[in-house]
Order: sequence, then C-alpha cells, then structure tokens
Amino acid sequence: MSTIGFIGLGQMGSPMAANLIKGGHSLRVFDISAEAVADLVSKGAVAAKTPAEAALDVEFVVTMLPNGGLVRNVIFGEDGVATTLSKEAMLIDMSTIHPFETDALIKEMAEQGFQMMEAPVGRTSVHAIKGELLIMAGGSKEQIERAQPLFDCMGSETVDCGGPGKGGRVKIINNYMSIALNALSAEAITLAEAIGLDFDTAMKVMSGTPAGNGHFTTTWPGKVLAGDLSPAFMVDLAHKDLGIALDLANQVNVPMPCGAASRELYSITRAAGRGRQDWTSVLEQLRVTSGLEPKIK
Amino acid sequence: MSTIGFIGLGQMGSPMAANLIKGGHSLRVFDISAEAVADLVSKGAVAAKTPAEAALDVEFVVTMLPNGGLVRNVIFGEDGVATTLSKEAMLIDMSTIHPFETDALIKEMAEQGFQMMEAPVGRTSVHAIKGELLIMAGGSKEQIERAQPLFDCMGSETVDCGGPGKGGRVKIINNYMSIALNALSAEAITLAEAIGLDFDTAMKVMSGTPAGNGHFTTTWPGKVLAGDLSPAFMVDLAHKDLGIALDLANQVNVPMPCGAASRELYSITRAAGRGRQDWTSVLEQLRVTSGLEPKIK
Amino acid sequence: MSTIGFIGLGQMGSPMAANLIKGGHSLRVFDISAEAVADLVSKGAVAAKTPAEAALDVEFVVTMLPNGGLVRNVIFGEDGVATTLSKEAMLIDMSTIHPFETDALIKEMAEQGFQMMEAPVGRTSVHAIKGELLIMAGGSKEQIERAQPLFDCMGSETVDCGGPGKGGRVKIINNYMSIALNALSAEAITLAEAIGLDFDTAMKVMSGTPAGNGHFTTTWPGKVLAGDLSPAFMVDLAHKDLGIALDLANQVNVPMPCGAASRELYSITRAAGRGRQDWTSVLEQLRVTSGLEPKIK
Amino acid sequence: MSTIGFIGLGQMGSPMAANLIKGGHSLRVFDISAEAVADLVSKGAVAAKTPAEAALDVEFVVTMLPNGGLVRNVIFGEDGVATTLSKEAMLIDMSTIHPFETDALIKEMAEQGFQMMEAPVGRTSVHAIKGELLIMAGGSKEQIERAQPLFDCMGSETVDCGGPGKGGRVKIINNYMSIALNALSAEAITLAEAIGLDFDTAMKVMSGTPAGNGHFTTTWPGKVLAGDLSPAFMVDLAHKDLGIALDLANQVNVPMPCGAASRELYSITRAAGRGRQDWTSVLEQLRVTSGLEPKIK
Repeated sequence: MSTIGFIGLGQMGSPMAANLIKGGHSLRVFDISAEAVADLVSKGAVAAKTPAEAALDVEFVVTMLPNGGLVRNVIFGEDGVATTLSKEAMLIDMSTIHPFETDALIKEMAEQGFQMMEAPVGRTSVHAIKGELLIMAGGSKEQIERAQPLFDCMGSETVDCGGPGKGGRVKIINNYMSIALNALSAEAITLAEAIGLDFDTAMKVMSGTPAGNGHFTTTWPGKVLAGDLSPAFMVDLAHKDLGIALDLANQVNVPMPCGAASRELYSITRAAGRGRQDWTSVLEQLRVTSGLEPKIK
Repeated sequence: MSTIGFIGLGQMGSPMAANLIKGGHSLRVFDISAEAVADLVSKGAVAAKTPAEAALDVEFVVTMLPNGGLVRNVIFGEDGVATTLSKEAMLIDMSTIHPFETDALIKEMAEQGFQMMEAPVGRTSVHAIKGELLIMAGGSKEQIERAQPLFDCMGSETVDCGGPGKGGRVKIINNYMSIALNALSAEAITLAEAIGLDFDTAMKVMSGTPAGNGHFTTTWPGKVLAGDLSPAFMVDLAHKDLGIALDLANQVNVPMPCGAASRELYSITRAAGRGRQDWTSVLEQLRVTSGLEPKIK
Repeated sequence: MSTIGFIGLGQMGSPMAANLIKGGHSLRVFDISAEAVADLVSKGAVAAKTPAEAALDVEFVVTMLPNGGLVRNVIFGEDGVATTLSKEAMLIDMSTIHPFETDALIKEMAEQGFQMMEAPVGRTSVHAIKGELLIMAGGSKEQIERAQPLFDCMGSETVDCGGPGKGGRVKIINNYMSIALNALSAEAITLAEAIGLDFDTAMKVMSGTPAGNGHFTTTWPGKVLAGDLSPAFMVDLAHKDLGIALDLANQVNVPMPCGAASRELYSITRAAGRGRQDWTSVLEQLRVTSGLEPKIK
Repeated sequence: MSTIGFIGLGQMGSPMAANLIKGGHSLRVFDISAEAVADLVSKGAVAAKTPAEAALDVEFVVTMLPNGGLVRNVIFGEDGVATTLSKEAMLIDMSTIHPFETDALIKEMAEQGFQMMEAPVGRTSVHAIKGELLIMAGGSKEQIERAQPLFDCMGSETVDCGGPGKGGRVKIINNYMSIALNALSAEAITLAEAIGLDFDTAMKVMSGTPAGNGHFTTTWPGKVLAGDLSPAFMVDLAHKDLGIALDLANQVNVPMPCGAASRELYSITRAAGRGRQDWTSVLEQLRVTSGLEPKIK
C-alpha cells in the first residue's frame, strides 16, 4: 500500500480518490473546494492546505485537474508540488490536457530530476464511482508497472499507449472521435425525424451497417488498411448520396454542418483523381493532404 | 415464380438480376450497355430493346439506376415503362435517389393508375453477388408482402421502413451517417498518425468507447433518448476537449473540417445555455435549432 | 420597338416587364398569378393564357422564373413556348438557374432550330423598379447586340460575360461570393458585439483594410495574381490569428462555422509547405487542391 | 523625445524601432537574434542583454512579439521587464495576442503598480517600413495621448478603440474578417476558373456588387442595421442560389468548405422562420443563436 498525494477533487477526482482509499492507500488530498476536501477526509484522507503539503513524504502524486494551466500551476507555482516532492516519488497526471503541455511538463520535471507520467481516463463519472475507468497510460513500462496498483483501484482496464506522452495523445484522439461523432449522429437523427422517420426505424437499418458500427472494424480493414482501393462502394457514389442527403436537409431546414464539411472532403478526394476508388480512400487522401507520405500506390 | 422486367444492369443491378434468375424467375432485361445485357442473356434472361419492351406482359418491373432523372426517363420517357406496363403489375424502384423524387414518381404513377413502391438496398456489390443485400422496403404491407419473394432472391434481410417513401428516406439517413462518418474517422486516424500513434493503439482504446461503437446504443439511450440531460459528461468539457484536439491538429497540419464544424455545433449548444448538461443534449439542441418541437423540458 | 412575350411576373419580373412597356415595347405577358397579369395589363400589356400564347408572333420571349425546372417546363412543357415560337425570335432567360441547366436548354433549343441566350440580373427589386439592374449577358456578340434595347429598358449596365452560358456562370459566382460573405460578415460582427465592441468601432478599422474592402483589389493583384508569393503577411501568422479569433469566439459562445472552415483551408495550405508564403497563396493552393494546373512555381 | 525600451525585432518590430529612432527617440533594444540587435545598433540604438536591461530608466517599453506566452515571459519571467521598469513608465504591447491574455497582463501589471496599454498594428511589413501602419490603440484617453508621439513615428493613423483591451479586440475582429475572407475569395475565384471564367470577367461584375464591396457599407446599413428586415433579397432565394453554387462546385471538384458552412447558417436562419426576411437577417439570427438579446422585433 502506498502514500499518495491527490490533487483535484472534482466530479471525476473525488470518486477516484475514494477508490484509492478503499484500496487501502493513504491519501493526502488537496482541492480549492473545502467541501470536497472534507468529504474525502470523512472517508479517511488527510487534508493538505497546499499542493506542496499534499506532495510531502508521498510515493505518488496524482493530479486530476480541468486544464493544463492548472496542472502547471499546481506543480511549479507557489507552494507547488515541485517544492516538496521526493525525487523517488512519481507524479501521475490523470487530467485531460493538451498533449504538448504534457510533453513540456514531463521534460521540465525530468530536467529537475522528478519522475512524471500521464494517465488520462476514459468513460464517465459513473464508471469513476465504480472503479471501472479506462486508464490510458503514457510512460515507460517500468512507470506503468509501478503505477498499476493505483490504476487497478480506479479503473478496470489499463492500456499501455506506447510511451511517455502517448496516453494523452490517445485520449485526445478518442475524445475527438466520440465528441465529433456525437454531433454527427445528432445531425443524422434530427434529419430522420424531420423527414418523418422514428429513431427505431432508422436504428433497425443502421445497426447492420457502418452507420451504426463505424468503419474501423467493418469497411476499412479489408480496403484502405489493406492497401486495396478497388471499389466496393465508389467515392463518386458516396459523394452523390451525400449531396442528396444535404439537399434534403436543406429543404427541410435541418442544419448539418459536419456533413456539409465532409462533402467537401469527398470533393477534395475526387479532385485528386480518386472518384472511382473505394470510399475508404478518403483516409489515404486526407493523409496525403496533411503532408504525410502516401501508403498506397 | 414471376415474370420480371429488370432495368439497369450496373455493378449492383447485374448480380441482383442474376440472383432473380437463379431464384427461378423469368427476366426481360434492359440496359444501355449491350455487353451487360448479353451477360444476363447468357444466364437465361430475355433481352429487351427498350424499357417499354422490358415492361411488356410482366408482373414486376425492377429499376436499378444511378439517379432520379434516369428513373423518371425510363418510366415516363419515350418508349418508357408507362407505355406498356399493366395496371396489375408493380414497379419496384431499387435505385438510391432523392426521396422527394420518389414521392413525385409514386404520386404520378398512382394518378395514372400504376402501382409503385421503392426498395433501395444497403451493403456492397459483394453482398449483391451473394444475394445478401439489405432491402429497405418502402410501401404498404401488401406491396412488401407481394415483393418479398423477389427481395428474398436478392437480399438476406428486408426492413419494412414504415410506408411509401420511407424506404428511400431510411436509405439516405443510413448513407448520410456512414459516408460522413467515413470522413470523420479519416480525420481522427490521420491525426493519430501525425502525432505518432499507430492505428492499433488508437483502436485498443476506441473499441471500448463511443468513439468505436457509436452513440446510438451507448450514451444516448440512457440520456437524451430517455429525456435525462443530467451530465455524465458535460457539454462544456466535450467542447473543451474538442478545442484541444483541433488546436493539436492545426499545429501538425492535419485538416479536420468535420471536427471543426462539430465544435461550432457545441458552441451553439453552449450559447443555448446547455453547457452544464450532458453532451448528448447536442441532439436536443440541434432539433430545436432545426425548428422541431423541444422534447425535453 | 419590339413585340415581346414576357413570362414570370414576380418581385423582379413585374417591374422588369413594366419598364419594357415604358420603353415602348409591346408585351404579351403570362404568369400563374392572375393578379400579377392584371397589373401588367393595366400598364398596357396583353394577357396570355399560356406560355405558348405569350410566345406567339413575338420577336423576343423573356423568362424570369424561380428555378430551372419551371424554365424547362415553360419552354418544353404542355402549351410551352416551343410550340409557337418563331425560328426568327430569340428567347432570353433572365432567371437565376443552374448553369448546367442553362447549357442543356440552349443546346436543346438549338437542336430544334430555336435561338436562346441567358441574361440573369444583379442587384435588388428596388433596382428592378428603377430600371437600374446589372445585366449579365451570356450569348454571342450578335445576340447581345440584338437584345441590348431590351436590356437598356431594364438595367443600367450590361456586362458581356464572354459567350453562351457565361452570364449564368458569372451570376452564380457573384451570388456565391456575396451570399457567403454576408454570413461571414455576420460572424465577425456578432463576435465583435459579444466581446464588447460596437459596429462603428469595428468599421473604423475595417474600412481601411481588406476586411472591409475585400482582397480582389487590395492584397491579391500585387501578390498571388502577379505570381509573387513572397510574404507580406505569412500564412503561418494568418493561421495563428485565425486560431485566436476562433478560440475567443468559442469562449464567448459565438458560433463561427465559416471561419472555422477557413482555418482548415489554411491548415491544408500549411500542410502543402506554404506556411511561410504570403497568405494570398491560399488561392493557389485551393486551385491545386481542386485539380487545376499550378500557375506559380 | 523619449527613451524607449524596444523588445522584439522581427519583420515588423525592426522597421518600427528604426522609425522611432528616425523620429528622434533614444532606444534600448532587445531580441534573441544578435543580428537583429546589431542592425538596430547600427542605426543608433543601444543594445540590451535582457528585457530587464531594455526596460531600465526608460519612459516607454514597446513589445512586439509573436505570441502571448512570450509577452508574458518578457514581462514577468527571469530578467523580465517588471524587475526594472519604473512605475512612471508605460508598457505598450503592440503584439497581436489573445485579448484575454492582454486583459490578464494589464490586470497583473496594475496590481503591481505598473502602467500598460496595448496597441496592435494593422497593414503589412511594407507599411511598417514606411511608418504607415494602422495603430489600434487600447487604453485610456490619457494613455493614448501620451503614446501618440510614438505612434506617429510608426503609423499614419491611430484609432482609439474605446478603452483598455479594446485595441486587441478590434485587431482580432479585423484579422478574423480579412483572413477568413481571403479563403472565401479563393473559393469563389477557383470555382470561376473551374467553370471557364477568367478573373477579369468575374471582377467586372463583382466590383459593382456586395461580392466585391462587402456588406458593411452596402446592404446592411439600410436593412438589418436599421432594424428593417423586409426583403430586398430573401433569405430563401439566397439559400437557393448558394445551393446551386455548391452543387456546381461539387460537380467540378472545387472544394468550398467556407461556402458549405455558410449554407448551413442560412439553413439555421430559415429554420428560425426567417426565410422570407431580407438576407441581412442572417446577422440578427446569428446574434440570437449566440445568446445575445434580439435587437429587431
């Protein structure tokens, strides 16, 4: 069992800290909310008046804060973690912050002789309460192994994302995809309603197609990911159908900004001469448009 | 077994017609490609020189054409289906065309005493060959029942979409979602690559979240679809994470037009006072922005 | 003075027809609105019961209708212009319709021996009343010369757009630019208000920069149009400033979808290696992305 | 004549500093580029080894740096301006940075008893050399008056933007508008070329319409800014024409992401019941969508 300084007791941090206590660890907790601190103290934590105090004589410091500026401030600011942290201890930032901020913090910490890794979490506050978070660990194998007992209290699954900074990167990709997808899904279902369909009817069909199941495990593996762009469904036809959907939406006054943006990506793909390739070639084209090396001849 | 006029022998139409022949039906086929016609004749079909000839003395006419203008022309144009079709026969348009074109055709056909339904198909040309298409049937119960033996030759699943014109509507929603999603997925995975992640690492995480599984069966049913907008994950936080992802993408030169558009939808949602609601409230907000009645107080 | 069949007496068509009468021409008018016809008759026009009747024994037919489907129908439909029009007469379509529809109509008319040109108009209904429209003439020099006396009654300026179909093309480009610009301008001024600026203060600055004056006559002529991409203002800096504006807008909940989309165009431009070129290189890059030949080495 | 510390000798800063010397002021200059410093020294400046040294015994400090992080660092970092600056002196930040960063800096400076204003500049490096920049001054009347002699050396026009922080805000609005407009203009002209028009033909028309002249001084003053939304050109028609342009662009493979985004704004405007209002109502609608109070009943 370890001694842990835990900084940041919000909607996610509070249950995470509580689960560490349940797991038998000793916690020194800090938050600007006295109420949040009191709640954890009632569960067995020791209150710290500053980040520095929370980091005193502990084996781990966990930070779970709303943004990168706060993480930096808690570490390097007045009465910050860096003023008391032991060189033997390890800081684990579990906040979701900009990956370049994470990179900078890890670098500056290392320059001062401190150990740091990041491990942002997936899923919701409900999962945080149940200790069933998804942990996206960014660090060396040794760091992840060392932190594993803590992760096991807070989450049900730890993914080794491949090295320092990679945890935060995977988190951002995952969130990007799920957050933007939420908006795109709203467009599709709002249009469905506006043209007289109900959700169940739409779902009956979409549950059996990439619309409901995504492309990562359906259309992509056999095509663009396998280097095969022979058409199962042509870019030109996808582009045409998208045009029909957008025309329809615009006739019934459903704004579909994501879909409208996607049509212009298909237009870029067609302009590059890929109109008769498989629709999954949009990935290859976007790679090239981004300045990455082509993968498929 | 029925006599069927089949018009439109392209990448999808040819195997569909072939499967009808295999199923024991008698086909009269028409296409502008003599080659495509010859191929079907070699499989047992009778060649027709015009749509009118294909529609002569048959119980069904199936049309499978690239756009609505062609469907209209094949029916009402010179030597069109309407010049010979029996009032007892039924026209089944299986093309993917604009739903408002379908509505107009069904109406005009009815005014002339003809029977028509639509039944666009899902999945790919591979499925067309195997007779495993998804049939999105739009018509009365009686029409669908009557056409079912034909559908069973061409597809492995028929969905009754709820009435005339609804088959085409579901098709367009399904295609909208899957086609735009393909572009959005390309954005996420291109960014992942540009920041040093590989596809497998990203997938390891996304396969356990809405990023990989969509929202229709994960986050939505317990929240926005249930009328509950208490936050499991707040709009404000989703908006913040999206901002991080877009900033990151713009720093490494990965264009993400769909994601950029989606952020502005979250901005609309926040401006409407929903920042502290669950992120699934984007659906409710888009409904309201589209002029639909609010569902959730 | 000429005899003219005038078809389409809406908000624009009515004053245009009235100005032709004022100019001394004899009009036969048709519209589905009896009221609109009666109004013109009170000004000296003769009422026609069908398009065919309006086209009977006239030197010109002018059409001014809301969309291309109606134009086609008025010409080739039942009791249409084509049933009575003299081969010596000229049809002038002044509607704003899809240029490809115009191309098709001109072609089909020519095949039947009829003469047709297009001449959509710019400016507003106020200008229509005053006879001060901008006429975008698409046709041969001879056609434009022949129609000029009519144009002079309706407009104060005629631009020869360079041949058949070019009038409609220029019209669409002009409208695209002004309509999208209206939305973009709304984004800028809404953001200004949301951050505490008033319109006059913003205008004081913008009236002296490309923000208020556009790029066509300011930044472009000396740079991208002259083949010079050495930076007066670098793409990278423009991209950075756009990022600040979008971040700001997203913090104060002003949705800026056009601006958000434009940032991704700058991202494409940077990905193509143009970050340190002049910001006007966005034009050259978009040309290349559209599959056009590069103009600048 | 004043003593001035000048920090930041880039493409803009160097000529600005040179013009201050020409104007008779005494400069202490700092930059990380020794070359840039040497150049200014050859023109009469004194070299400073740190920001602190540049700020020693001067009446003004001018900062002209690439981003807000650098401005903060130069002021409050190690050997920063704040360590030596006199409480009688005034810091003028002429960089283009995030307005919220400016707000925070002004506040923190004031808390420590320092005087600060911001004055970002408009126009290009060519204007910087000629001393013809546009100065967007954000500060009290007294601060602007005090800085005016400096501004007169660097620019040809100073706009009092209305108070502290307002200079930076106007700058961002101006840049937003001009930078996004550059992209939108590229879309219009690329489409023009793709459909066979040349720049001069397009310009002949656009120079007489809002497409070339903007809306701020043409369509808006008599309509939305005057509270009059009776239609000179209806939202529904603008939306229709935009749809034609986007369809055309997508047929010839010209991506138009800004225009596509703008169409969805018109769709929002129509969904709000404004289809038959004047197109300038897009401004009023976007205001409302942003959560601002309606101005027009």
